Amino acid sequence: MNSLSVTEIAKRSRKVAFQLSRLTAQEKDRVLLAMAEAISANSEAILSANKQDLEWAEQEKIDRPLISRLTLNPGKVQGMAQGIRSVACLPNPVGVREKTTELDKGLILTRISCPIGVIGAIFESRPDAVPQIASLCFKSGNAVILKGGREAQNSNRVLGSLLREAIASVFADLVDAVQLIETRAEVAEMLREEDSIDLIIPRGSNDFVRYIQKNTQIPVLGHSEGICHAYIDEEADLQKAIAVVLDSKLQYPAACNAIENLLIHVNIAPKVLPELAQKLNDEGVQLVGCERSVLQSSLIHLADPIEWDTEYTGLKLAIKIVDDLESAIGFINEHGSGHSEVILTENSELAEEFLEKVDSSSVMWNASTRFADGFRYGLGAEVGISTNKTHARGPVGLEGLVIYKYQLRGEGQTVKEYSGENSSKAFTHLPL
Amino acid sequence: MNSLSVTEIAKRSRKVAFQLSRLTAQEKDRVLLAMAEAISANSEAILSANKQDLEWAEQEKIDRPLISRLTLNPGKVQGMAQGIRSVACLPNPVGVREKTTELDKGLILTRISCPIGVIGAIFESRPDAVPQIASLCFKSGNAVILKGGREAQNSNRVLGSLLREAIASVFADLVDAVQLIETRAEVAEMLREEDSIDLIIPRGSNDFVRYIQKNTQIPVLGHSEGICHAYIDEEADLQKAIAVVLDSKLQYPAACNAIENLLIHVNIAPKVLPELAQKLNDEGVQLVGCERSVLQSSLIHLADPIEWDTEYTGLKLAIKIVDDLESAIGFINEHGSGHSEVILTENSELAEEFLEKVDSSSVMWNASTRFADGFRYGLGAEVGISTNKTHARGPVGLEGLVIYKYQLRGEGQTVKEYSGENSSKAFTHLPL
Repeated sequence: MNSLSVTEIAKRSRKVAFQLSRLTAQEKDRVLLAMAEAISANSEAILSANKQDLEWAEQEKIDRPLISRLTLNPGKVQGMAQGIRSVACLPNPVGVREKTTELDKGLILTRISCPIGVIGAIFESRPDAVPQIASLCFKSGNAVILKGGREAQNSNRVLGSLLREAIASVFADLVDAVQLIETRAEVAEMLREEDSIDLIIPRGSNDFVRYIQKNTQIPVLGHSEGICHAYIDEEADLQKAIAVVLDSKLQYPAACNAIENLLIHVNIAPKVLPELAQKLNDEGVQLVGCERSVLQSSLIHLADPIEWDTEYTGLKLAIKIVDDLESAIGFINEHGSGHSEVILTENSELAEEFLEKVDSSSVMWNASTRFADGFRYGLGAEVGISTNKTHARGPVGLEGLVIYKYQLRGEGQTVKEYSGENSSKAFTHLPL
Repeated sequence: MNSLSVTEIAKRSRKVAFQLSRLTAQEKDRVLLAMAEAISANSEAILSANKQDLEWAEQEKIDRPLISRLTLNPGKVQGMAQGIRSVACLPNPVGVREKTTELDKGLILTRISCPIGVIGAIFESRPDAVPQIASLCFKSGNAVILKGGREAQNSNRVLGSLLREAIASVFADLVDAVQLIETRAEVAEMLREEDSIDLIIPRGSNDFVRYIQKNTQIPVLGHSEGICHAYIDEEADLQKAIAVVLDSKLQYPAACNAIENLLIHVNIAPKVLPELAQKLNDEGVQLVGCERSVLQSSLIHLADPIEWDTEYTGLKLAIKIVDDLESAIGFINEHGSGHSEVILTENSELAEEFLEKVDSSSVMWNASTRFADGFRYGLGAEVGISTNKTHARGPVGLEGLVIYKYQLRGEGQTVKEYSGENSSKAFTHLPL
């Protein structure tokens, strides 16, 4: 798409980021609406590029699920435009006064939100990631460098050009707010641009995310594995439990927030497991499990220990019978990836204990793990789901794309006046 | 101090971290007060260990400033105890409901603050870092592994034992909330414990922090360089400007928030520079500068270009005359390290422009850069100052030691009901 070096691209991002950080909410929303309009009005060009990608994918015998994620249609294109419009409607996350403190009379400290700077986003197959991530980054005042998958190259090119043209139609000098790179070699170069890029957001397979994490000094936001759990407690409502487990596994099995392990309290297992195993089997789910679970249903085969730590991203589930809540929590904290877990129970005390003690980014009580998603959580949209323990955790929307700075307004105060035993002034530290 | 492997130490930290995350505010404060009491009551043992360290430091001909940071006295020891008591008085940062959203009737999402988990803190010379960092980590529910400098080894050992005994006196099984390691080899091992350690906080020289950043997959919070700037605008009040510049450079020249570069508007330079250069020279500050500055005072020697990017941490200052605010801001964003910068001006419009456009963690107007400090900012205390663009920026207190998780409480809802064109339910996304 371009012949610039990645270093030059990163420098341009850094430069434009300073300008982006100073746009008003209105200015940003004007650009976002222009982006939405550009996509809406160029549906045919997008679909025709997508057709080229699909032809290539057929030739290369790309997997079916990947092709289905790659495929666009007129409804999906209008959905992209609508997605950008929703981002425009979200409150401006930049310039929010988070805290004001009077340090002393005439010495006022304000903590104010500001963009992170330059984001590198790397993702696979789904072309709708381009407008989604670009609009969230623009709304939060960040410059972004996008790298999509080889299989969506033509779609991404057209989408990228439309977004850039839309930006340029409002602010000609901000066109580099969105830039695209295409090759793996360019990704490797991007990972070395720690002086220009502030955050890398990778979305893709476990191995891919782990490769990124191991090969850059830039902070990485995201998750590699999504090993999620459901735990059916002794006091679960059986119908709710079955419905939530089926949804958590089957509503979209390839998603990171689909469950891989199912834990069942020993006292309820005989009542729920035969029916649940049958229903999962009817849906084509391959079942493995612990020795006790195998005794409950002939549909369950003995699990290999490694299967407790495996993300299948498909129609397979590992089942374990446990003696109590404590064992379930211990198992999840050991084998889980800190993503999303659910307890099924009518006992609110046990539920609260689960919600408190399970150390995952999303913990649920009687609700599908599939709810762990930026749109469903009401964040408007998401750049991804994070299992990091710092910066942002769980589904990450606009708030995860800003940081803050401290502004201190004074009248010539020096620290000397506030220091030592003979200091002439004292701090008031009054919240304002 | 101990014969455990670092892997075993890290595992113990991880294990105790789960327990720490569930302590109530009262339980944590009881431990903190026991820590303060232990230090207060064992002043002699601490001072005698410190004396050993000082003897070793004399033998090894350690630098004066380092020895002065190493030296304890009865007042400093009581100050440590007092510091812990102040941390006990701070509000509990864990379990704060940050946001509650009704996703739908009977489906309630809460974002709640929680500890990060296990912190590795590495620092030099000042033994008071031990109680300070340990108390902040304990208050925020994190386990901590501390590594102090070789020169403070005896002091740190006694302090570490006192803190551990104090914890054990209240909760015997939480003793590993604070653990110490001592050797560089152990630090290298700790940096590889990415499965057990969630955050590394290094405090020390630039080279040291950069070594840490380059040698671990664990997120690192801190700053390497502190290249801070003062800019004297054309409309500055001369007396305020001189006082703030002198304080920013001289109040504690070795501090990271002391200035290294001074920028002066060309129109005010003749009025302020001769007097300011004289005063800085009187205090022993070596002055280098641009060609135009050299013409203003014979005390200034021509700077080598590399000096604009150098942190002296001592009595040296680089001076540059600039044509306008835009040049000053551009210079700072290029040469600064994103730490702390100040504008001296009586023009509030220019000041606000500076506060907005300078991309540093602390930006100041008519106040010394030395104010950039957790205690002075009213955070109670700090674990360090961060120039990161993610997680936490500027002086980092308790808030930087917590993250959050999402809790979702439902009644058996599945995502299927909310999905597709024939969905039977819709999200309300009502903030509560």
